[in-house]
Parts: sequence; C-alpha cells; structure tokens
Amino acid sequence: MQSYPNFKFEITHRDPITHARCSLLTTPHGTLETPAFIFCATKGAMKSVTTQQMVEVDAEIILANTYHLMLQPGHEFVFRHGGLHNMLHWNRPMLTDSGGFQIFSLGHGGVANEIKGRRNCHIPKTLLKIDEGGAHFRSYIDGKEWYLTPEKSIQIQRALGADLILALDECTPFHVDKYYTECSMERSHRWEQRSLQEFLKNNDGQQALYGIIQGGIYEDLRQRSSAFVGEENFFGQAIGGSLGGAKEQMHDIVSMTCSHMLKDRPTHLLGIGGISDIWNGVANGIDTFDCVHPTRLARHGGALVNPDKMDGKEYINIKNARFAENINPIDENCSCYCCQNFSCAYIHYLFKAKEMLGGQLLTIHNVAFMVRLAKEIRSVIKDGSFGEKIRFKLLS
Amino acid sequence: MQSYPNFKFEITHRDPITHARCSLLTTPHGTLETPAFIFCATKGAMKSVTTQQMVEVDAEIILANTYHLMLQPGHEFVFRHGGLHNMLHWNRPMLTDSGGFQIFSLGHGGVANEIKGRRNCHIPKTLLKIDEGGAHFRSYIDGKEWYLTPEKSIQIQRALGADLILALDECTPFHVDKYYTECSMERSHRWEQRSLQEFLKNNDGQQALYGIIQGGIYEDLRQRSSAFVGEENFFGQAIGGSLGGAKEQMHDIVSMTCSHMLKDRPTHLLGIGGISDIWNGVANGIDTFDCVHPTRLARHGGALVNPDKMDGKEYINIKNARFAENINPIDENCSCYCCQNFSCAYIHYLFKAKEMLGGQLLTIHNVAFMVRLAKEIRSVIKDGSFGEKIRFKLLS
Repeated sequence: MQSYPNFKFEITHRDPITHARCSLLTTPHGTLETPAFIFCATKGAMKSVTTQQMVEVDAEIILANTYHLMLQPGHEFVFRHGGLHNMLHWNRPMLTDSGGFQIFSLGHGGVANEIKGRRNCHIPKTLLKIDEGGAHFRSYIDGKEWYLTPEKSIQIQRALGADLILALDECTPFHVDKYYTECSMERSHRWEQRSLQEFLKNNDGQQALYGIIQGGIYEDLRQRSSAFVGEENFFGQAIGGSLGGAKEQMHDIVSMTCSHMLKDRPTHLLGIGGISDIWNGVANGIDTFDCVHPTRLARHGGALVNPDKMDGKEYINIKNARFAENINPIDENCSCYCCQNFSCAYIHYLFKAKEMLGGQLLTIHNVAFMVRLAKEIRSVIKDGSFGEKIRFKLLS
Repeated sequence: MQSYPNFKFEITHRDPITHARCSLLTTPHGTLETPAFIFCATKGAMKSVTTQQMVEVDAEIILANTYHLMLQPGHEFVFRHGGLHNMLHWNRPMLTDSGGFQIFSLGHGGVANEIKGRRNCHIPKTLLKIDEGGAHFRSYIDGKEWYLTPEKSIQIQRALGADLILALDECTPFHVDKYYTECSMERSHRWEQRSLQEFLKNNDGQQALYGIIQGGIYEDLRQRSSAFVGEENFFGQAIGGSLGGAKEQMHDIVSMTCSHMLKDRPTHLLGIGGISDIWNGVANGIDTFDCVHPTRLARHGGALVNPDKMDGKEYINIKNARFAENINPIDENCSCYCCQNFSCAYIHYLFKAKEMLGGQLLTIHNVAFMVRLAKEIRSVIKDGSFGEKIRFKLLS
C-alpha cells in the first residue's frame, strides 16, 4: 500500500461463523474502529447538532457530500478554510463521496428512491447528459450548468480534504435493464480508473481512495465489478448502485456482492443505515456504513430503539399521542444526554410546540444509539458471540 | 424577610458615582451574581441550544413564560415532571412571569410593539375582556376561552416551580391616555395584592415574589406605584409597562422610576436587552434584565459585538454579503465555541444554505456575549470604574 503511506487497515478480530470482523482503520485524523457508522454532515454541517456535540456522544466519523459543497459554498471556499476538518472543527476521520450520487439522484428524479425501487417520486430532473467524459447537470441552486468528470471530482475532493474519498461512478438506477446496467458499470470502471490516475498524480498521502462496485442486482456483473475494483490500486472498496427493491433482496445482493470482493480491504456499504441492515452487512464483511436515516429520522420525531425489545420495530415516533403523558425517557438504559435528562412527554411537547430542541435532543439520542450499536457489534465480534447473536436476530 | 427564608439579597459593591451595584441573590437553585441577564426559554425550551450548552457558556439564569406554558403543555404537565427545573434539566436560578404580558401583548394586537411605541403591527387580537377579577382571552393555539386571575397566575407559577415569580399586572399599552394608565395601574395594584395574598397562603419558601411597578411614562404614577410595591411584602420589584417610544425616553423613564424605588430590593427591568440599555439600567440600580433579543437576533443572523469598537453598533448581520469570504471569527477575542472554531464566512454560508447550525452557533455566541457583558459590568462596579466607563459611553 505504498500509495497510502498514512493509512492502515488491520483486521483484529474475525467472527468464526460469519464474515464479520473488527478492524483498525488508521487515517491522518486518527484510527477508526470498525464496524462503524458514518454520520452525514451533508452540506458541511451536521443538522441539529454541533460537531462538539457529535464528539460528546463519541461519534467516530462523519461524511460530507461533494455534490452539495461544490455547488455551494464551492470547494475553493472550503480549501481557503484549510479543508473540511478545519472548517467544521472536526478532528476525527471524515469521508467525502464523489458527487455522483446526487447528480444522478436528482438527475433521474430521485435515485435514492429509484435504487430502492420506490416509484412515483416527483423531483425535478437536473441531469442533462451523461457522456464518456462525465456528467452534465444543472445546479439545483441557480440553474447554472456544470460538468463533473472523474478528474474534477478528485480535484474537488482533494480541496475538501477528507481522509477517505470515493472514485466517481454512475449510480445506476433500479428500473433499467441489464444491458444498461452493464454499459453503465463499464463506464463507471473507466471513470474509476481515471479517478485513480488523477488521484495518484497529486497524491500527498493524506487521502485514501475507494473504488466502487457496481453491477446492480446481477451476480455476474457484481462479480466482474468486484474483480475490477480488486485489481486496481484502491485503498478501499464500496458497494454502490442498486441493491434491489425490498429489504430481503438488498440483504441478498449485499451478501452475494461481498462474496466476490477482496477480504483484505476496508469495505463500505453506501447509503444503508437500518439497524437490521447493519447487522446483516457486518455479517457479510462490511466495515463501514453511512446513511442520513438516524439524523433525518430524529428531525421528524423518530427515536431509534432496540428492535430486539420492540418486536423488530427499529424506532418509535415520539409525536404519537401515546407519548403525550409518558414521563419516562425514551430508553432508561441509554446513557445519552436526551435519555438521561428528558422525558418522552417533554420531547413530544417540543415537537407539538415546534420547538427545534425536540429534533436536537432526538438527534443526540439517535447518534448515541448508532455509536452504541457499532460498539455492541464490535464487542460481540470480539467475544465470539456475533454469529449466535445474528442467528437469534434472523430467527426472531 | 421571613416570607422568603431561602432567599437572600446582599448588595456587595456600590459604584461611588452612579446607582450601579453588585449583589448576591441567593435562591434555592444557587446564588446569582448581579447585574445579570436572564435568557428566555419562552415555551420551556431554549431556542437553538440545549440547557447543557447554556451551562457551558456559563449562563446564570433563564426564564420561561407562564402564558405559553399554561396553554401548552399546561402547568399540571410541568408539575408532573417535578417542575420546570427538572423538566428542562436546569439546576440554576429560574424566573417565570405572570402570564399577563403575553395576554395583553397578543390581546391589544402586540403590546411588545405597543409599549415600545411601534404602530401598525397586525397581530390578531385574542384579549376578550379585562375586568376586576382578571383577564378573559382566547388561546392562540385552539381558540379556547381562558380566564387568568391573580390567584390563578400564582397557582400556575407555583406548579411551574421557578425561583423568582411575578405578580399579575396589566401591561398597559403605550397609546392610551393618562387616565387609562392610572386606572390600569390601580387595578394592577389590586391584582398584585391578590397575587401576594395567594402567594403567602401556600408559601413553601421555595419561591420569591416580585411586585411590578406600573405607571407608564408619568412620574407621579411611577412614584405612586413604586411606593405601593415598596410597602407590600414582595421580595423583589420589577419595572413593567410602557417605557415610552424612543430609546432615550426609555432611559429617562427607567432613571426616573428607579429614583422612586426601594434601594434594598432586587430590581428587575422587564423585556429590555440592548447593550446600552443594560449599561444605562445598571447605572440606575437595575440588577437583572431579560429579553428575547440576544437569542432571537442570533436566529436571524445577528451577532452581538462590542459597540465601543463598532461606532455604537451593537450587532453585525452575518448574512450581509461582506461576510461571504471573511474567514476570521466574529470576534477573535471572544472565547465562545463559535468564535474559537468557526469563521464568519462559514456561518454566512450556513445561513445561506438554510442549515440550522448557523443559528445555533450565533445563539452560543450571543449568549456568551451577554454573559461576558454582565461579568464585565460586575467587574467594573467592583473595581470602582463603572462611573467612568459609562461617562465614556455617554460621551462617545
């Protein structure tokens, strides 16, 4: 790994039954213990909480989205601030994506919905054209035309300065045929190669590049894409593109894709953050996850709860009338600031009164919950009980 | 002060030139050093920050508004939570008002504007009738009819459980004649007496009652009202009602009213929070101030600054284009989390991108600023230079 002198990926524990593992992922901004969850500071700011509050609940890593930042305030702006770490006052590991996901997401009228198989989402299309060079699109802010190429994505991500960065790919939608998926995958491979070349050209050792495995729901394509990424000099690998329509299909595709991927590289699953999805991903060898889910859910009144105690339900809606008089905390065993000090009824009231503190408190809880979930997963991998735990989860 | 066994008001320092003074105001939730600024947790929640963040910037005392809390979630709800201190997780001194201000404010179509002499404010009128017993009004939430009496206000404030509570008065509007102001003042006095009787009936020593001095812009009325409040067994005294239309008139009325008030009681100036207004109030013997200004200003992009360094300007608007590329903090001498870690340009960007972190960071700054202002004022009173400082301020 001579291209990544300041990065290290050491697998420290392996579950004897599944593919779950613990690792230490060393970056210039500290060593991340995995499995870990990456929280979304989408536009270069956590929504509802400060980065200091993120540190207080021991969040280990955050990401920012290149797409949003390049449009506003622009990567030069961030560069003049000394990079994202400095601008956001975050001294722990950080990731940026390539910008591709949102271009195609907004472009196709909602890939986030599209790749998850949801139809009828009416988001204005801003993608103008994809060609061999890159993607033409309009800024959702001012309508200005942009052209994002693999080289440009890497240059922007260099200016942003996150530790872990992603090669540009096309995030292939769900409702396309195999032929489109294959062509798109092959173009993504060429874009990823160009991303890597651009990366290596000015590599200062402060960032590490992940390749992305495409191929949609097709095993032969996922296998080819895994082989491609595995042969190139990427530090890590991420699973992108469509994972099918339903939760079960997603688990199957993650499992199938993981079976073809290298076992000695840090492995990220893009955009997935459900609790059972994380257990399943870890069982298949995923090291890191990201999703807006925990923090977005919080702003809408959702508090994460232990599904083992809640008949599989992963969250409660604090706005529900049944919490109006409940003076207990969301989870009395939770050590977060929200649960230690505030009642369900109070938070219910805050949402009713449109006081933003409600969303802030639930964000703190949900972040603390996800941090604890990752710790619990690491702990049961280390003590050898992960396989048993997940069998119980699959049976219940 | 046998009615207030757990409260104490000791004047520790007096400025030799003005009426400024430092005191220790002991409450069941700790001793407040005055002069002090009281931050508004209007509906039982600070807007934009947690009470923990308030403690981190060393905010000393907050208030909540009885009017809002009695309508939603209701004082019984707060009582079931063990009172406001427990519900909000705030272990320092706290104040509640009587509920009157907002009834009359919303009732007359905006007393806040009215008492400050601003016309043409179109707020729907919810006040139905004032009679000798109390005030009939409609809830702004569901239109339900309410009747607030002095007794009821005290009962509600008892359930809320703040340390410092206020007698019910009518907040007399600005644009009424002297005759109305006088009649209103006299009714307020009768309401305050009833408030006091109700207070003493069930006094458990955990709260201290303030009387309110009315009388509008008329010296003879202010004098009579000061005498009335001074003769009754109130722990503290507050200046309420109209303070005239312009800033200068307000300073004159505060000065004139203070000249008639007792000198040995804690003295509060209701609803005033401008920097020069605070210096002026302290010079006249005011101990505590409250206003939504610092926190509301923050949510709209206003950052408090030292007017001595800014040609008298008390805040900057971070949304102004001139901050778009300014990578310096708001005030490099400010030790708050916002100024220590974030640039003007970043906060400017956050407001532009509608990221709520912008308002959160400015709230932290403005609260820290007001805390520091109160500390500075105490410090110059203690070292004897307050009079000189304020002469400089008046001349510049």
